[in-house]
Amino acid sequence: MTYATRMLSTYPGTTSASPETLAACIDACFDCAQACTACADACLGEQRVADLTRCVRLDLDCADQCLATGAAVTRQTAADPQALRASLTACVDACNRCAHECEEHARHGMEHCAVCAEACRRCEQACNALVAELTA
Amino acid sequence: MTYATRMLSTYPGTTSASPETLAACIDACFDCAQACTACADACLGEQRVADLTRCVRLDLDCADQCLATGAAVTRQTAADPQALRASLTACVDACNRCAHECEEHARHGMEHCAVCAEACRRCEQACNALVAELTA
Amino acid sequence: MTYATRMLSTYPGTTSASPETLAACIDACFDCAQACTACADACLGEQRVADLTRCVRLDLDCADQCLATGAAVTRQTAADPQALRASLTACVDACNRCAHECEEHARHGMEHCAVCAEACRRCEQACNALVAELTA
Amino acid sequence: MTYATRMLSTYPGTTSASPETLAACIDACFDCAQACTACADACLGEQRVADLTRCVRLDLDCADQCLATGAAVTRQTAADPQALRASLTACVDACNRCAHECEEHARHGMEHCAVCAEACRRCEQACNALVAELTA
Repeated sequence: MTYATRMLSTYPGTTSASPETLAACIDACFDCAQACTACADACLGEQRVADLTRCVRLDLDCADQCLATGAAVTRQTAADPQALRASLTACVDACNRCAHECEEHARHGMEHCAVCAEACRRCEQACNALVAELTA
Repeated sequence: MTYATRMLSTYPGTTSASPETLAACIDACFDCAQACTACADACLGEQRVADLTRCVRLDLDCADQCLATGAAVTRQTAADPQALRASLTACVDACNRCAHECEEHARHGMEHCAVCAEACRRCEQACNALVAELTA
Repeated sequence: MTYATRMLSTYPGTTSASPETLAACIDACFDCAQACTACADACLGEQRVADLTRCVRLDLDCADQCLATGAAVTRQTAADPQALRASLTACVDACNRCAHECEEHARHGMEHCAVCAEACRRCEQACNALVAELTA
Repeated sequence: MTYATRMLSTYPGTTSASPETLAACIDACFDCAQACTACADACLGEQRVADLTRCVRLDLDCADQCLATGAAVTRQTAADPQALRASLTACVDACNRCAHECEEHARHGMEHCAVCAEACRRCEQACNALVAELTA
């Protein structure tokens, strides 16, 4: 059981969506932020870093957005589905762009990009799942 | 001349929009992040903090989104108008919600909310101005 | 296997310390940042929030420092033991202060503080373990 | 008058140090975070990015630490001189390392590094000034 799940179970009110969907989204956001930070750094460590500058940029954008969205989804006090949706939409966009770029480099042997793309796709899906539940 | 303006003038390529519009947006994002961090803290310092928890939450969301968007707009390498628009849209939403809440408390004497609302409205406008220029 | 472990295994160079110690520290930092963000929010959701403002403040400081340190430890390119130590020392301090405060509230029934204190103590230990390995 | 100064003037309690020293430190931290984010990106935009990877790494570390310290110094509720000192010490270290690296590249014509080094040195000094006042 992750800390996100445990923290949600101790919230002194009702949560903004089901704890399962929230925790999956929160964990995916923080994991993706970490993976993107690591991928940007691994790209810097590659000899052909000059071919990876677009990847570094998308990694950094994605890491920042995942932290902002991960924190917003974490907060349950005065949670507002419309506000969450705006943040989640930006996160889906950032994850999708970063995953798309990383998948291309993964096909050319960049293993860190393969792992990072997986983290981004998982985050994209977890954010979409929460949007779907908020809209339902 | 702010650091944002000076840094843009040293970028070794073409910028994603006019330096004036970019710098205004970057400065507004970082200023708003600081003001929202301060407003959340000032709310905690108020005797009637229990009436201000929604404000604290919106302040924290807005601060996080402003930092993510401010960093994304700062980055000129492989900049993509569509990606920027997604981030800017989330920032406009966060600033508008936080400003709306703070304006309410400002009417009831919360001076930090008045200053914070001003920072949020300025950021909202600067983000909208950049969106308009990217779309033109 | 966490993303931190998998990303370290794909880094195209030598890592700054053993992958096990690094991954434990990275995971603990990001987990603690999430737990502290959640604890600050749960405190805001408590009826007696006015008694918890110091806890909110320490939670927010700790979350911010854990993210900065978690990112610094994630980066392996041009890693410098002395620089890491400065960041880790600040993180140990923030975690220890936040844990100490949360442990007090946990004794008075605040369950979110009990979980948060656990995350802080785990992060404090993981940072200390990495400092010890860097110094060895 | 910056937002930091205005927000400090509306804080509903006593501030942790003189508003002048606090505001100078807060503004320097947020400015430095922005300049370092921009410098990391400008390095990515250089043809000889492969020679600048250490600079990118130090820029990213410094940006993250400046945001954590800038937020901690912003918060006045339950402020603790010892806690601030730990955060400020880490910030001084990050700024000094980044400035040192950027000054080297500035001597070889990297203009963004010259501006970034200036922002780092100003932040280092503002943090040291606050430490001195907290200790006095």
